[in-house]
Amino acid sequence: MERLRHLDLDGLVLYDIDDESSRNPDERPFPFTPTVDPSDYLADHLHQWHTPVVVYRAVAKHRREDLRRWIEQQDPRRTLTVMVGSASSGATPAISLADAQAWRAELNPELLLGGVASPERHSRRENEHLRLMAKQLAGCRFFVTQVVYDLNAAKNLVSDYRYECESRGMAPVPIVFTFSVCGSMKTLEFLRWLGVDVPRWIENDLRHAANPLAASMEQAVMTAAELIEFCRRLGVPFGINVESVSIRREEIEASVELASQVIGHVRT
Amino acid sequence: MERLRHLDLDGLVLYDIDDESSRNPDERPFPFTPTVDPSDYLADHLHQWHTPVVVYRAVAKHRREDLRRWIEQQDPRRTLTVMVGSASSGATPAISLADAQAWRAELNPELLLGGVASPERHSRRENEHLRLMAKQLAGCRFFVTQVVYDLNAAKNLVSDYRYECESRGMAPVPIVFTFSVCGSMKTLEFLRWLGVDVPRWIENDLRHAANPLAASMEQAVMTAAELIEFCRRLGVPFGINVESVSIRREEIEASVELASQVIGHVRT
Repeated sequence: MERLRHLDLDGLVLYDIDDESSRNPDERPFPFTPTVDPSDYLADHLHQWHTPVVVYRAVAKHRREDLRRWIEQQDPRRTLTVMVGSASSGATPAISLADAQAWRAELNPELLLGGVASPERHSRRENEHLRLMAKQLAGCRFFVTQVVYDLNAAKNLVSDYRYECESRGMAPVPIVFTFSVCGSMKTLEFLRWLGVDVPRWIENDLRHAANPLAASMEQAVMTAAELIEFCRRLGVPFGINVESVSIRREEIEASVELASQVIGHVRT
Repeated sequence: MERLRHLDLDGLVLYDIDDESSRNPDERPFPFTPTVDPSDYLADHLHQWHTPVVVYRAVAKHRREDLRRWIEQQDPRRTLTVMVGSASSGATPAISLADAQAWRAELNPELLLGGVASPERHSRRENEHLRLMAKQLAGCRFFVTQVVYDLNAAKNLVSDYRYECESRGMAPVPIVFTFSVCGSMKTLEFLRWLGVDVPRWIENDLRHAANPLAASMEQAVMTAAELIEFCRRLGVPFGINVESVSIRREEIEASVELASQVIGHVRT
């Protein structure tokens, strides 16, 4: 609360962090630490928080009855949710993403549902805009991206999504772009492990910077500013999310500073 | 001469255009028309031109004695050359690029030699910076890129090249970035046929623009400006080259306008 209360935030995102070792066989650069459930964290530590909160649900982690009850109990004025399927397409979870989406529509239709958008997947398969359309038809009212370092990939996705919406006569929903700082090569390695495409020139900039954290912050602010301008030009509603992918104090504090700087670009 | 004399150009680039159908089996969107040899064109039509001219030599097109004589006869104060190997690595030309490079060193060592740099190849193989180093060690004193539409790829190459130079204690030589306008989907198709990576968002922008030529010009100016800033920040010497890949009058005239606009960014 102390870190964030001086920022004029529209909302918070609370992730439901999963091991994801089933998705990526490479060694995890930072070891996995199970975290407090984001919904418990909200109830126990952020009850005084004054804006809506996006609570992630990694649906495969939960029991059917628990997840149904959670969906039912949320106050849609205070909570939004992003439901995330199993990390690996090989696993067969007890609850599928489609089940969870259907329960939301049945039990709490006012609860705003978001989905995950991946510019990286669009670079590989060129069909992420069609996946977004399918999620939108399944009830998603906003999207949140993975951390963005590859501006070109993000622009490609926004552009393809926008023209796909137009051709179907649908209005685009907000895309919330996620940014983070990267203060060390270890964090960069972890970003790559998470599936983030970090362009070579950015890696080189950070590797040779006297102060990588400051260089990363500057780079993230510029990327966010350019993406904001691009979305405005294309008429795609957007949001900006800032996270720290590492638990190092200096990177957490730098992400608070990043949020503060990005707000200046969003509000102009 | 009339088109160009009002521009304050540092030089001209005269390409030696090859069919390249051996390199790309897909149908060529614009049919190939053999052109006047660039050296003849310079002698017959541009003898009043007042700045140095970069004359391309597709070495495989020429006979040994003709190419040796040509190298010998050039005035290095007026001519620079870029020697280009065979379009397809499958062909076995009478003259190899290594032969031609050696002749230049032997017959006219003052004649400035340039090489081709490909950001696209760097995206695929991640070793173009090492190829540039090898060319530099073989005598290249500058590089000229293929047409740049993918800013991220160009930045990756510049950055990797710069740090490779640093690690070997060598000074980077100028990289001349080529830009062109694209006034129609047919021209865009031709750019792709030539091997240029045109990002999806730029394609979408042009496809849906009321005036694709004007949109393309604006896009090229912005990309050039950003690349110039990037090279300056990294201390890599650069140049800007503008070409028209189509023979349509409006695209040729727009490339003259593009050159004029880009000069403003180079000279500030």
